[in-house]
Amino acid sequence: MSTRTDAGVGSQSEPARVDLLGYKNIVILTDGASRSSSAKTATGLLRYRQQDIAAVLDRSEKGTTTGQLFGVGGDIPVVGSVAEAPDADALFIGIAPAGGKLPEAWKPIMLEAISSGVDIVSGLHDFLVNDGQLVAAASQHEAKLIDVRRNREHTVAGHATFPANNLRIHTVGHDCSVGKMVVSLELANELQQRGANARFLATGQTGIMIGGDGVPVDCVVADFVSGAVEQLLLRNTDAEIMLIEGQGSLSHPSFSGVTLGLLHGCAPQGLVLCYEAGRTAVKELAHVPLKPLDELVRLYETVGSLRYPCRVIGVAINGRKLDDAALDEEVGRVQDELGLPACDVYRHGAGVLADAVEKFRAEVIG
Amino acid sequence: MSTRTDAGVGSQSEPARVDLLGYKNIVILTDGASRSSSAKTATGLLRYRQQDIAAVLDRSEKGTTTGQLFGVGGDIPVVGSVAEAPDADALFIGIAPAGGKLPEAWKPIMLEAISSGVDIVSGLHDFLVNDGQLVAAASQHEAKLIDVRRNREHTVAGHATFPANNLRIHTVGHDCSVGKMVVSLELANELQQRGANARFLATGQTGIMIGGDGVPVDCVVADFVSGAVEQLLLRNTDAEIMLIEGQGSLSHPSFSGVTLGLLHGCAPQGLVLCYEAGRTAVKELAHVPLKPLDELVRLYETVGSLRYPCRVIGVAINGRKLDDAALDEEVGRVQDELGLPACDVYRHGAGVLADAVEKFRAEVIG
Repeated sequence: MSTRTDAGVGSQSEPARVDLLGYKNIVILTDGASRSSSAKTATGLLRYRQQDIAAVLDRSEKGTTTGQLFGVGGDIPVVGSVAEAPDADALFIGIAPAGGKLPEAWKPIMLEAISSGVDIVSGLHDFLVNDGQLVAAASQHEAKLIDVRRNREHTVAGHATFPANNLRIHTVGHDCSVGKMVVSLELANELQQRGANARFLATGQTGIMIGGDGVPVDCVVADFVSGAVEQLLLRNTDAEIMLIEGQGSLSHPSFSGVTLGLLHGCAPQGLVLCYEAGRTAVKELAHVPLKPLDELVRLYETVGSLRYPCRVIGVAINGRKLDDAALDEEVGRVQDELGLPACDVYRHGAGVLADAVEKFRAEVIG
Repeated sequence: MSTRTDAGVGSQSEPARVDLLGYKNIVILTDGASRSSSAKTATGLLRYRQQDIAAVLDRSEKGTTTGQLFGVGGDIPVVGSVAEAPDADALFIGIAPAGGKLPEAWKPIMLEAISSGVDIVSGLHDFLVNDGQLVAAASQHEAKLIDVRRNREHTVAGHATFPANNLRIHTVGHDCSVGKMVVSLELANELQQRGANARFLATGQTGIMIGGDGVPVDCVVADFVSGAVEQLLLRNTDAEIMLIEGQGSLSHPSFSGVTLGLLHGCAPQGLVLCYEAGRTAVKELAHVPLKPLDELVRLYETVGSLRYPCRVIGVAINGRKLDDAALDEEVGRVQDELGLPACDVYRHGAGVLADAVEKFRAEVIG
């Protein structure tokens, strides 16, 4: 533990904060990987920034549309080169593979984009700025190389007091990869459509590409996770409702520390519990059973309230394993068992959870 | 969350593990800082590795003994140069200042040591290996530069199963800086004296310098904290009783994530709760009251048991603010209130807690 101001992981200075929402003609690069599960970054961008996407670049799928290829994005074209999207302002790397490596075959495509002055945005662990060839080309053509996951956060959390009219809603879960980002985004969008000053705050690389501001918490040095999240909130206090993306689970044996650093860093009043119906074991740890929902509700409320009083106000069900009838049954079962409103935001929309947020807001803020 | 194998914080390879316990003629450098609170690294080394310490180097205190200067270490001399300790095999940086900066005035002393082939060991955030002048000199004279806090851990915890005869005892606390390292060390020493195969495992820089093996958890990238600790235990399973140094507190608003990553990484069966009597607010956060002990016992047992069933088996009181009568009263009060054995390991020795560990061991391992 320390109050130091340097994480001691290198000598490069903090990357400048870049306005990722300023890009309005994005080409998403998924060349040869559009049909892999790692293309979830592309899918997320197409779903939540459709208006800013000019094209997807995949030579092997050229000529189709994103609607046909990904089931989202409508008539946005799939192209075979950056030149086919002449107004492009950025090339976003559209995959998030385990290992985080940049496919070597993508280098010529990236160099072509850079030579047209197009910025490159990446959430991979292989940092663009560590590639001498890309750095030299970007310098020559005045293009930016933006590594969303590159991070030198070095602020220790100071138990900040947030403005009295800030409502902080945080998605938590029974496991990784159950849809916390999607629930936070859908809730932010629904509340905005209802006229609220609501804002999504990202804590992972895809969320940052979609939402523009965030902290890649899994890449922050341990002592500074809560501090990095606290700083994220402090620069967004003009939003009256913050929807803060969750990570992992307090009961996940590998990532619980990240989850707790984030939970205490964002000091939420309200929690939305996210889970996938039918999942019984921790992701990638088949021998570790998941905890029951009622135990998780008590756990998150107890541990979260150590920082600021909080409670679970709703449940987001990921129903991808269920047909409509089974999902209806699951919603009823969860509502009865936990006494909380529940829905699947993809299948039902986020209305039920937005109602819960508005009711909770009236109660705790007035 | 990820299963990646690179933290993405640079390109240097993992530093080789060095046997710090191999040094038997250590000079501790505290030049001009012996009387500051940051000299706690020196004090810890003098207390727990007295037989390996040849001298302390402080030009302003030259001629005295460590017993006189620090109240520990007996007749070990305080010298004015490395040359006065001709058999020296290593120079250990004896301070742990907030900010972690290396005093510029120490460079000539370090260069003198290096020129005699003496290795340098540092727990500061300013890494020795980032200083070109030190690196060049070390290369020329075949001396090693060892940064205890330099760390490239990149293993995700896998919910490991430990051998059935491994007893894992972890110190936890109500706050930072209450003596978790000291309690773990005193317990390991007491159990060894009773003939047990007990081992201290460090999680901070001073503990690593004293104990030889450990992980500087506060410098590990968030996703890998539990994994780094799990690896530490897996390479020490030949010890029948592991005493794992704790960090921070589950209720500390800045460092709780580190505490939980460590707690779940080491999967203890038994916890020793450490606290300082009379402390009422979180260290350096005067506006944040500390939680009551009974609440902390429930909290650590509930959250710790998510990974492996555990319970608090004893309480270590840091009584530095109390006189003997007040400390006796505190021991009685805590034993009554929590139903757990309690003592101050400095004032009473670790016998009471070692008894608790042996009783617990008979119960859970047999």
